[in-house]
Amino acid sequence: MEQLRFATVEEIYENYLSMINPIDQVIDVPTQESIKSVVFSDVVAEEDLPGFDKSLVDGYAVNSRDTKGASPIMPVVLDFAFEVRIGDKPPASLRPNEAAWVPTGAMIPEGADAVVMVENTQRFGKIVEIMKSTAPGENVMKAQEDVHKGQIVIHKGTRIKLKHLSLLFSLGVQKLSVYRKPKVAIVSTGDEIVEPFVKQKQLTEVRDSNSYTLASWLRNHYGLQAQRVAHVKDDEIFLKEILVQCIEEYDAIVISGGSSIGVRDITAKVIQSLGSPGLIYHGALIQPGKPTIFGLIDDKPILGLPGNPVSFVVSTYVFLLPVLRKLEGEATYLPVPCGTVRISKNVPSVQGREHFVRVKLSYENGEIIAEPLFSESSSLSNLAMADGLIRIRRGVEGVYAGEHVELYNLWE
Amino acid sequence: MEQLRFATVEEIYENYLSMINPIDQVIDVPTQESIKSVVFSDVVAEEDLPGFDKSLVDGYAVNSRDTKGASPIMPVVLDFAFEVRIGDKPPASLRPNEAAWVPTGAMIPEGADAVVMVENTQRFGKIVEIMKSTAPGENVMKAQEDVHKGQIVIHKGTRIKLKHLSLLFSLGVQKLSVYRKPKVAIVSTGDEIVEPFVKQKQLTEVRDSNSYTLASWLRNHYGLQAQRVAHVKDDEIFLKEILVQCIEEYDAIVISGGSSIGVRDITAKVIQSLGSPGLIYHGALIQPGKPTIFGLIDDKPILGLPGNPVSFVVSTYVFLLPVLRKLEGEATYLPVPCGTVRISKNVPSVQGREHFVRVKLSYENGEIIAEPLFSESSSLSNLAMADGLIRIRRGVEGVYAGEHVELYNLWE
Repeated sequence: MEQLRFATVEEIYENYLSMINPIDQVIDVPTQESIKSVVFSDVVAEEDLPGFDKSLVDGYAVNSRDTKGASPIMPVVLDFAFEVRIGDKPPASLRPNEAAWVPTGAMIPEGADAVVMVENTQRFGKIVEIMKSTAPGENVMKAQEDVHKGQIVIHKGTRIKLKHLSLLFSLGVQKLSVYRKPKVAIVSTGDEIVEPFVKQKQLTEVRDSNSYTLASWLRNHYGLQAQRVAHVKDDEIFLKEILVQCIEEYDAIVISGGSSIGVRDITAKVIQSLGSPGLIYHGALIQPGKPTIFGLIDDKPILGLPGNPVSFVVSTYVFLLPVLRKLEGEATYLPVPCGTVRISKNVPSVQGREHFVRVKLSYENGEIIAEPLFSESSSLSNLAMADGLIRIRRGVEGVYAGEHVELYNLWE
Repeated sequence: MEQLRFATVEEIYENYLSMINPIDQVIDVPTQESIKSVVFSDVVAEEDLPGFDKSLVDGYAVNSRDTKGASPIMPVVLDFAFEVRIGDKPPASLRPNEAAWVPTGAMIPEGADAVVMVENTQRFGKIVEIMKSTAPGENVMKAQEDVHKGQIVIHKGTRIKLKHLSLLFSLGVQKLSVYRKPKVAIVSTGDEIVEPFVKQKQLTEVRDSNSYTLASWLRNHYGLQAQRVAHVKDDEIFLKEILVQCIEEYDAIVISGGSSIGVRDITAKVIQSLGSPGLIYHGALIQPGKPTIFGLIDDKPILGLPGNPVSFVVSTYVFLLPVLRKLEGEATYLPVPCGTVRISKNVPSVQGREHFVRVKLSYENGEIIAEPLFSESSSLSNLAMADGLIRIRRGVEGVYAGEHVELYNLWE
C-alpha cells in the first residue's frame, strides 16, 4: 500500500466533508411523518399566530387606563359588560369603565388593551372590583406576536424535531418538501465473521454485530434507509464486485470490520481501484477510531469503519454521521456536546489525538459526575454500561479529576 | 369543585408514581426490532465473550518470559513458528523461543501469553526480532473477559438502546421478552380547537397542535402506541362518554388542552366521576406546567395536560413520560439531565416551585453557554428555537449568570 495518510479530526471535517454534496432530490412528506427529515426549502407561514389578540389568563379584559391606582385597599370599580366565550368573537366592543370576562385563550374585545387576572378581581353581580393596576398589553398576546404571515419559520436544511411540530400544526402546514433520505449500504468484512444468529458456531468464529447495529442506528436515529447488503470474506475480487454494485444503487457505502493491517490494506486498495478521487484518508488521529478509512467515488462517500465495537461506535458518531447528515442536506452536521459533566478521575491522553472516553454518569443535587470506564475497546459489556462519551480535544494532555468536560450522548 | 390540591414535583414522583404499576404482559420481539422496548426478564448470556483468547493487535504471539529485557538496541531473537489466520485455530502450539504471527482478532496459540505489536518487531525470514519486553497478558483479551456464559448482561426493566445491540448480536440473542407497549389515548378539548389542516378557519379558532405533537412524540421517542382519539368541545357528558370508552380500550389517557378555569374544572370533575381513586392532584408546583391534572381510575393513569404549548411540553416531559415509562416496566423512569451548561444571564424564580426555562445553546472551545429565552409560554416560534430546558429546583431563588445549571434535552 502507498504511504499512509492520517488526518486530524479537523482536517476530515474541513477537507473530506467539503467534498460531500447534498443529494439534490426532493420529496413531499405529510407533517405527521416529517420527524427526522431535512427540509429542502424554507417553510413560510401562511397565517398569523396568534390570529387575534388573545388573553393569556382567566380574568377581566379592561382598558388599562381605567385601572390606574387600583389596589386591594382601594379597588377600582368597573361595570361588568359581557363574557367572551372561547372560540367566539366578543359580542361587543368594550366601553370606558367596563370589564369583560375572558377565559385563557379567548379573544380580547375591541376597546380593551389588558387583562386583569381573576385573582386580582372580585365580581358582585353587575360590577367588577379591580384590585391591581394594570399596564397596557399585560396578559395579552397580540395578533402576529408569535409569527406573522410570510415569515420564515423553519429554514432550509433544518432537521425536523418534535419541537417544530407544534408550530407546523398550529400554522396548518399539512406537508413539507424534504430531502430524499440517503440510501446507505453496509458491507461487513472479516474471515472470522458469521451471521449473528447461527446456531452452530466454531470457537474462532465471531458473530457479526457491528453491521446490524449500524443499520438499526441509522434507521432509528436519522430515519435513513440503511441496508446490511452482504458479508464478504477477505477476498479482494468479491469485495470489489459488491462495492461496484453498491455504488450504483446506494448513496453512501460503509465497510464494517477488518481491523487487522491486511484487511485494512485490502479495503483501502479496493476503494482506490473503484474510481476517483478514490482514497482520501487512510486513518484518523483519534482514539478509539483510528483505523477509519475515508474514500469518495464520484460523489459517493465510502467509509471503512474499524472492527472493534467501541472504535466502531466512535467512528460512526464522529465521522459517519456528519457525512450522512451533510449528504442529506442538513445545515449543521457536526456533532455537538449535550452538556458538560464533572469528571471523577484523571484521564490521560496522547497529545495530537482526540480522545473519546466512555463514562458512566451519576447525579447528586444537580451535579452530574462522570466516571471514566477504562477498559479494552473490544469490551461490549463495558460499552453497554456507558452513558456517553467525553471528548478530550487534540492538544490537551488529559483532564484532571473535578474538571468540567464535554459530554456526547450517542444513545438517545 | 372541591378544594384544589396542588402538589410538588417530589410529591407527584413519590405518591402518584407509586400508584402506577407496570403492565404485566410480555411479548417476544426480534432483537433487530427491540430498540425502545423494555426487557421483561434478565437477559442471560448463553456463551462466553470472547470465546477464545484473542489478539488485540497485529503482531507476534510470544511467551512473555522469552521477551525479558528486549529493547530496540538489544532485541531478543525468536524463531518464526507459523501464522495464525483470523477465524482459524492456530495450526500448532507455540514452543519456547518461538513467535507466531497473529492479526488483530485472531486466536492466541497455546504456549503464548502475550502479543508484541508489529511496530516493535522485525522479521527476517525465519527469525523475528522482538524490540520490546512484554508483560503476561499484554495485548490479549482472555476468553470470558468480557462476558461469561450465565452472566446477566441486561437487567429486567432496562429500555433497549443502540448500545445494547452490539452485545446482543455478539451473543447471538435472536429475540427478547419485553413488556407490551402501553396504548395511550389522547383526547383533545377546547371549544376553540379545530383540526390542524382545515382550510377555512374562523379568526377565533385555533388549530390543534398539542394532541398531534404528543402522538408523534410518544410514537417516536418511546415507540408507544399513541392514538389521538377525538376532539371534544367543552361538553361534560360527551367528554365522560369518550373517557369511559378510552379506559376500556387503553392503558393510559391524556386529555390535552383546556387551560381556562372552567375547562379544567370540567376535566377534573369528569375524572373524579369516572371511578376510584379518581382525582389525585389538581395541579403541580411547577412553572410552566402548573395546570396539570393527575387522576387514576382503577390502575389506569389519566392526565389532564395544560393547553399552552410550552406548558404542555414541560408537563409531558416532567410528568407524563415518567408515568408511561413506569407503566411500561422501565426500572428508571424519572427524567435525568443530559449535562450541565453555563447560563448567560440571571434567571429569577419563585421559591416553592420548580422552574423549567427554555434555553438556546452556543458552543465555544468546549464550553457550552445557555441563553435563556424569556418569553410568553404561548410562543411556538420561541419553543421551536429552544435547544433544551434548564431546571431551577424548588427552594432555589434563581440562578446567576455564569453558574452551571442542569440541562434537559427533550428533542433528541
